[in-house]
Amino acid sequence: MPQTPEALREHVESFLRSLPFMRELGTLDAPMRHSLGGKRVRPVLCLAAGEAVGGTVAHVLPAAAAVELVHSFSLVHDDLPALDNDTLRRGVPTVWAAYGEATAVLAGDALLAEAFRLVLDYESSAVARQLVEATILMIGGQQQDLEGGHDLAELHRLKTGALFVASVMCGVQAAGLPEARQAPWRAFADELGLLFQVVDDILDSDGYVSEIGEDGARRLADEAGERARERLHAIDADTTVIRTIVDGLVARTS
Amino acid sequence: MPQTPEALREHVESFLRSLPFMRELGTLDAPMRHSLGGKRVRPVLCLAAGEAVGGTVAHVLPAAAAVELVHSFSLVHDDLPALDNDTLRRGVPTVWAAYGEATAVLAGDALLAEAFRLVLDYESSAVARQLVEATILMIGGQQQDLEGGHDLAELHRLKTGALFVASVMCGVQAAGLPEARQAPWRAFADELGLLFQVVDDILDSDGYVSEIGEDGARRLADEAGERARERLHAIDADTTVIRTIVDGLVARTS
Repeated sequence: MPQTPEALREHVESFLRSLPFMRELGTLDAPMRHSLGGKRVRPVLCLAAGEAVGGTVAHVLPAAAAVELVHSFSLVHDDLPALDNDTLRRGVPTVWAAYGEATAVLAGDALLAEAFRLVLDYESSAVARQLVEATILMIGGQQQDLEGGHDLAELHRLKTGALFVASVMCGVQAAGLPEARQAPWRAFADELGLLFQVVDDILDSDGYVSEIGEDGARRLADEAGERARERLHAIDADTTVIRTIVDGLVARTS
Repeated sequence: MPQTPEALREHVESFLRSLPFMRELGTLDAPMRHSLGGKRVRPVLCLAAGEAVGGTVAHVLPAAAAVELVHSFSLVHDDLPALDNDTLRRGVPTVWAAYGEATAVLAGDALLAEAFRLVLDYESSAVARQLVEATILMIGGQQQDLEGGHDLAELHRLKTGALFVASVMCGVQAAGLPEARQAPWRAFADELGLLFQVVDDILDSDGYVSEIGEDGARRLADEAGERARERLHAIDADTTVIRTIVDGLVARTS
């Protein structure tokens, strides 16, 4: 019996709470944990994908947590004064605002390194490879964003899409799905980044909303949601939990 | 016939020159390559250790390059205004001084991720694990340095020693040395960080020189060099090239 997204989220919270960082990180432990807020969309998706192909939650959790750590790493560095200069995230001070800029640089570095450490425990290096490549795409996307003038779809593919793809693919790879059966999962995962980002833009009234208006963005989100559902339907597995997550991504209001 | 340190250095230079970073990094390619200056002490040591236990240079090169990328990552971030605020390194502008602070944060991130990508190609995850744990120790050391007031020996063990240990251990692990035979290599590698750092302090007139004077620091360096040679001598392999490298570390003037 697959677990609900809420139950999966509880597993993520509990795993992250008790996740030991290397003791040599010393006082970086606090800013690292400070950064680990959020809705857990990516790790829950990772767990749901892993469960759908027969993996256990316990086995997929390190991959799910690693995805969340990479997400947090990117936020901690993106929030820095030299980049987005954000002082608040989810209603609390960003890491640099709370702990200083130098510590925020190092806490972000440490989150990334700890994420890689987590996925090295898998027998196959596929999970680690998936995660490191997604990380590189995100970094490249952030650089494009700094430069400006790039295609919005390509920018989102790198900045947002890559880690959504990794969330799904790390889940099924951690669960041991043979490579020959991974293609439909990748096709599904490819739709999620756009879906997530367009809804984000609608909630923030920027990005796609600035480009094609709110109605256009809503239509784009609905179409992306529809494509995601179709591709999910084409997968030979019980994907009801993931379907619930996709519906939640289309309809989310925060 | 083992190769000289100079020949090994040429291999490193040539490998780094032609090393492809992922194309999605786009304009980060230039600042990343800009950061890759230096004497190649760590990758040469890595290759020499790998060769001493029977590995080929070609097989050990990705590990050696990854160690150098991690070294560069740490310098790029440590040079940032919020950390050491250095505008020059090896006589040329630091990455942030040449390309801006935001790009330097991202270029450092990308160097770290590319380093991890390189070592994921090895059949065993031992090399990747060694490198990621050393990275975490370095980050923890940098945070201790920011805070001040810590024991100098412990600080150097983290900031400098960990990556020297990784240089040697990644070399022998990439070359496939069984774990049961790795202990004497680790014992040797443990001496190198202190040796390198004390000589650095003598050249820069800080650190240990401030603490115990130049004569005291010179004595400490000579003792560390002697211990390193003894431990090297205890290793059952042709370590003549590594001996040359150690002698060079004791006597270096830049």
